[in-house]
Amino acid sequence: MVIVMQRGASEQQIQKVIDRLIGDGFDVHRSTGVERTVLGVVGGKIVDTRDYELLDGVKEVVRITQPYKLSSRTFKPEGTTVDVGPVRFGSKEVVVMAGPCTVESREQVEAAAEAVAQVGVKIMRGGAFKPRTSPHSFQGMGEEGLRLLHDAAHRRGMYVISEVMDHTQIPMFLEYADILQVGARNMQNFNLLKELGKVQKPVLLKRGMSATIEDLLLAAEYIMTGGNHEVILCERGIRTFETATRNTLDLSAIPVVKKLSHLPIVVDPSHGTGRRDKVAPMARAAVAAGADGLLIEVHPDPDKALCDGAQSLLPAQFDALMSELQLIATAVGRTITH
Amino acid sequence: MVIVMQRGASEQQIQKVIDRLIGDGFDVHRSTGVERTVLGVVGGKIVDTRDYELLDGVKEVVRITQPYKLSSRTFKPEGTTVDVGPVRFGSKEVVVMAGPCTVESREQVEAAAEAVAQVGVKIMRGGAFKPRTSPHSFQGMGEEGLRLLHDAAHRRGMYVISEVMDHTQIPMFLEYADILQVGARNMQNFNLLKELGKVQKPVLLKRGMSATIEDLLLAAEYIMTGGNHEVILCERGIRTFETATRNTLDLSAIPVVKKLSHLPIVVDPSHGTGRRDKVAPMARAAVAAGADGLLIEVHPDPDKALCDGAQSLLPAQFDALMSELQLIATAVGRTITH
Amino acid sequence: MVIVMQRGASEQQIQKVIDRLIGDGFDVHRSTGVERTVLGVVGGKIVDTRDYELLDGVKEVVRITQPYKLSSRTFKPEGTTVDVGPVRFGSKEVVVMAGPCTVESREQVEAAAEAVAQVGVKIMRGGAFKPRTSPHSFQGMGEEGLRLLHDAAHRRGMYVISEVMDHTQIPMFLEYADILQVGARNMQNFNLLKELGKVQKPVLLKRGMSATIEDLLLAAEYIMTGGNHEVILCERGIRTFETATRNTLDLSAIPVVKKLSHLPIVVDPSHGTGRRDKVAPMARAAVAAGADGLLIEVHPDPDKALCDGAQSLLPAQFDALMSELQLIATAVGRTITH
Amino acid sequence: MVIVMQRGASEQQIQKVIDRLIGDGFDVHRSTGVERTVLGVVGGKIVDTRDYELLDGVKEVVRITQPYKLSSRTFKPEGTTVDVGPVRFGSKEVVVMAGPCTVESREQVEAAAEAVAQVGVKIMRGGAFKPRTSPHSFQGMGEEGLRLLHDAAHRRGMYVISEVMDHTQIPMFLEYADILQVGARNMQNFNLLKELGKVQKPVLLKRGMSATIEDLLLAAEYIMTGGNHEVILCERGIRTFETATRNTLDLSAIPVVKKLSHLPIVVDPSHGTGRRDKVAPMARAAVAAGADGLLIEVHPDPDKALCDGAQSLLPAQFDALMSELQLIATAVGRTITH
Repeated sequence: MVIVMQRGASEQQIQKVIDRLIGDGFDVHRSTGVERTVLGVVGGKIVDTRDYELLDGVKEVVRITQPYKLSSRTFKPEGTTVDVGPVRFGSKEVVVMAGPCTVESREQVEAAAEAVAQVGVKIMRGGAFKPRTSPHSFQGMGEEGLRLLHDAAHRRGMYVISEVMDHTQIPMFLEYADILQVGARNMQNFNLLKELGKVQKPVLLKRGMSATIEDLLLAAEYIMTGGNHEVILCERGIRTFETATRNTLDLSAIPVVKKLSHLPIVVDPSHGTGRRDKVAPMARAAVAAGADGLLIEVHPDPDKALCDGAQSLLPAQFDALMSELQLIATAVGRTITH
Repeated sequence: MVIVMQRGASEQQIQKVIDRLIGDGFDVHRSTGVERTVLGVVGGKIVDTRDYELLDGVKEVVRITQPYKLSSRTFKPEGTTVDVGPVRFGSKEVVVMAGPCTVESREQVEAAAEAVAQVGVKIMRGGAFKPRTSPHSFQGMGEEGLRLLHDAAHRRGMYVISEVMDHTQIPMFLEYADILQVGARNMQNFNLLKELGKVQKPVLLKRGMSATIEDLLLAAEYIMTGGNHEVILCERGIRTFETATRNTLDLSAIPVVKKLSHLPIVVDPSHGTGRRDKVAPMARAAVAAGADGLLIEVHPDPDKALCDGAQSLLPAQFDALMSELQLIATAVGRTITH
Repeated sequence: MVIVMQRGASEQQIQKVIDRLIGDGFDVHRSTGVERTVLGVVGGKIVDTRDYELLDGVKEVVRITQPYKLSSRTFKPEGTTVDVGPVRFGSKEVVVMAGPCTVESREQVEAAAEAVAQVGVKIMRGGAFKPRTSPHSFQGMGEEGLRLLHDAAHRRGMYVISEVMDHTQIPMFLEYADILQVGARNMQNFNLLKELGKVQKPVLLKRGMSATIEDLLLAAEYIMTGGNHEVILCERGIRTFETATRNTLDLSAIPVVKKLSHLPIVVDPSHGTGRRDKVAPMARAAVAAGADGLLIEVHPDPDKALCDGAQSLLPAQFDALMSELQLIATAVGRTITH
Repeated sequence: MVIVMQRGASEQQIQKVIDRLIGDGFDVHRSTGVERTVLGVVGGKIVDTRDYELLDGVKEVVRITQPYKLSSRTFKPEGTTVDVGPVRFGSKEVVVMAGPCTVESREQVEAAAEAVAQVGVKIMRGGAFKPRTSPHSFQGMGEEGLRLLHDAAHRRGMYVISEVMDHTQIPMFLEYADILQVGARNMQNFNLLKELGKVQKPVLLKRGMSATIEDLLLAAEYIMTGGNHEVILCERGIRTFETATRNTLDLSAIPVVKKLSHLPIVVDPSHGTGRRDKVAPMARAAVAAGADGLLIEVHPDPDKALCDGAQSLLPAQFDALMSELQLIATAVGRTITH
């Protein structure tokens, strides 16, 4: 932290700030220039910089270190690999996870599983509990849906990723899912994050619609502080003034996260754009930008989907996309795992 | 819903859209102009407009009715009043709720209670479980804090509002709190909202940082659909590109909500600005714009606050603000209840 | 500026940064802690902090001084008053400027002038050249409109404010207008700003739709650097994800600007909300928050307005609003000049 | 346009709306349902939908056609190709334009020209007049810079693109530049756009920081309405709450524009990210997403650059990037022209 005093701040004001800093356990380096005094501050506990900002004579307080630690690359310079069976997030492989937005029936999930298994997908996605903006929308099949998903996937040698809505659901998810997904709306559900810190399975953490990348890394920090270091980050679009797409997919988050953190990052172009015809270009772009994986909605009959059919690919479209992604992955020196 | 067909859409394409509409239970009015065909659609179930948008020959789909019902003014033209003892949200009174961000100790909560009771506050606020962006920040005293808050407030004839983080905490809150607050980060925690729909106490629902006003009304709809119609909305700032304030307090939400909904709306200028010296101007502005109440952080010793001290008023500042608000309330034909 | 080196940055890397800083004319204070080295930097020329951020071994670069000077309160601690005849922006008076969005005809501008003069307005607004998002919208009457506005206002003892679109129009505007307005879309039209720096008349500078308050003060700096210190700032709404209002009026900009700058700040609730029924609440709120003035659209027959009729008040509505504002102004210890 | 009347709107109110619609030249289709009346409206002049929204009894007004025409794909279903010599924007080629942010000296521009010519660039970029946020930053060399750029490029068989700041500069630019660039801050400088409509040279139009894609197409419409159809659109990042990058590069704009418009679209990853190490991943992503070209800053000695050195690539980095882009272009069935 650096504290910049106002021009003409009195010696008494400066001393009061220094006293408080020492009380908070900081080492203080004082630089007195012709124009103003600057206090360089090291160590100490985590404080709200605004507390200092409001002291008399203080002009500005600047935080100079990241508020997250376990998730930062400073803490762990080499990248982390999160393994799910033989699938390795954060390795040379680009992991494509696919499946329907929601589990709707045994028939639908079996057809979807068959479709994605046929193109070689290793991790199947599907929602059983759905966070819907409107209470009048379909809310998911619940545990029964989870069981159907688990069966359809495992029978075909695929792993399962599904969204957990609440910390009370964790035990149930541990039974059926191989990766527990935290949705964008729950990125700062701190009770959920804390409990996931005690779990022994990988967590895929989606960026909130209004979350900065720093917020995302702090949310990961909650999980990691509990002892679970198997965190996969996921960019899925942020809320901006643009209305042509459902969200604005922030692909520059990929190189930014790669620099700040050692955790793998994947991209969800289905939610990120909200429209089927935008999914393929954004999926290709994500791989070209260095994403470690993709989360893609595929539905055997999107016209009849109970949720987000508009952003789901048909099996044939998904198959074609896989071939395109293969080429892009090769172009950036990686391989596609799917 | 209105569906605009592309210029030159074929009769077959138009018919396919009409068939699907009828399948979804809609009445369809077809207008064929020189240039294009427009389908006016009434009734039917709630659908995702994107499902129609992707059909062949469709140019645009426009939703023409609000997706919320119970919270809309169309449904209930006169305003709703939410009563907490003799205090009436949504009446001519402007209700000022005040207290510390967090309960930190018996001494602190007693001092705060004494300070706000002395200026006549009827509803005391205070957090016992804190949603903190960083896991390394103080997380609140938990149930013990709730009990201290309840005792300090009730002994002085004040009611209590406090934030519930999770649906599992509801029974505990019913014991200690008179209004259950849903924080901005939980505005779309649908499991929490659904459970609050079964409760017999008022709920104060804060707008999420990236929530539109429509999203806020849909979240209220979740609670109301469960049977609890005692919902108070709260504007507390949205996330924008401006960094000079913690959030951008959207005061125009007040007249917008007043037009769209019958529910009372209050404003939290403390979180909305994040800085003590911005609280008073924004509190005055909120009352001038027609807010039904305010939620203000007051701390007996903000410099020592464990949370958000920077945005808390000193008791003397709060006292002075009350006098200013009194004048503004009079100017807009209302009274201050505090 | 403060430069934080990475943990384990080599002595050579640190020295390279210091050398470059000295080359840029800075004084450098070096603090070497257990964990890392921090360089405090004072003086020197204005630099792009990113240039240092990319040097080897650098972790973060933090700017600690504002990039604007003439417009800052540090430079001039007391507030500035901008005078237009007897009207004083930045004084105890709250200055209400009013008139139609656009000058459409002699009849219309005369009727509007009569309406606003009757409630005591001293400064009349009106557009002659209109920046319209669509080329197919009405573009304004041009110089003829300016002349009609000038005549209608001056004959009734009112001053004129109108928007200049381009530096080539400045001489024409000097003939007809008493305050030259820079629109939101031109806030960073630097050629225009530079030329306005040479003018002897007040400039009202509107905040751009995506401009931070710092950007606004930097734009003012352009004008002031040229020698014209008569700058009035104007908040008119910023672009956010919320679509219920045309823009999100950021009233917290008022106390923020008051702290950072000595310049007067006014608010345009007509453009800030885009809807007639939102203008009055936001105008009241602006005065309650401490605005030095308002810019309000009034049209004798808004239904027939060629531009923005939806946000224009009827004369009777304007009259009623004035009475409300009078009460609010009194409540905050000010008077209304209109 | 569709006008939805309120439930219980009176026959008189409905008739008043219909009368006004007919007065504005519209054909009206009336649908009266059980619950409400909906008016479908076709033809007529371009109106501000808000004018109808404020009429008594109206609940909502919905625009159903795009407000732009010449730039829309409806108007011209096949894509447009903009030619600059043998270079074809909008064809199978992906056109890479490169050069320094600003022309600083003959030596610098010659070195830059040599560097980019050597990797086969056909169009060189460089700024002579710089829109700088601060008046204290370097403002460009002016016409002399333009001449140096023209000479350095043309002598090596390259074409020139440079940013015109103002309509008065157009004649000067016609002498030196082959493509006239409109910067993000000038996207709604309508006087400039109108004059560019009369020009016989291609215009590259950058998206404003707070411009929706619809705003961008409307700005293009200004130029095309004047008769100049040679418009190249450019995505260069929008302003959001995220501060880790200078702007948020909205790559989904590429498929969105491709669907809505027939105009070519290129991407500027240098301004879009603001950091050298983010340029390559975003450039690759843009090509993978379908961009028709790129605008990349290359500087022979970025550490000494007077402007935006932090986002400029070294010649060797640019060379390496070209090889990567080659592979991506091949993967999406295109070629790189550079």
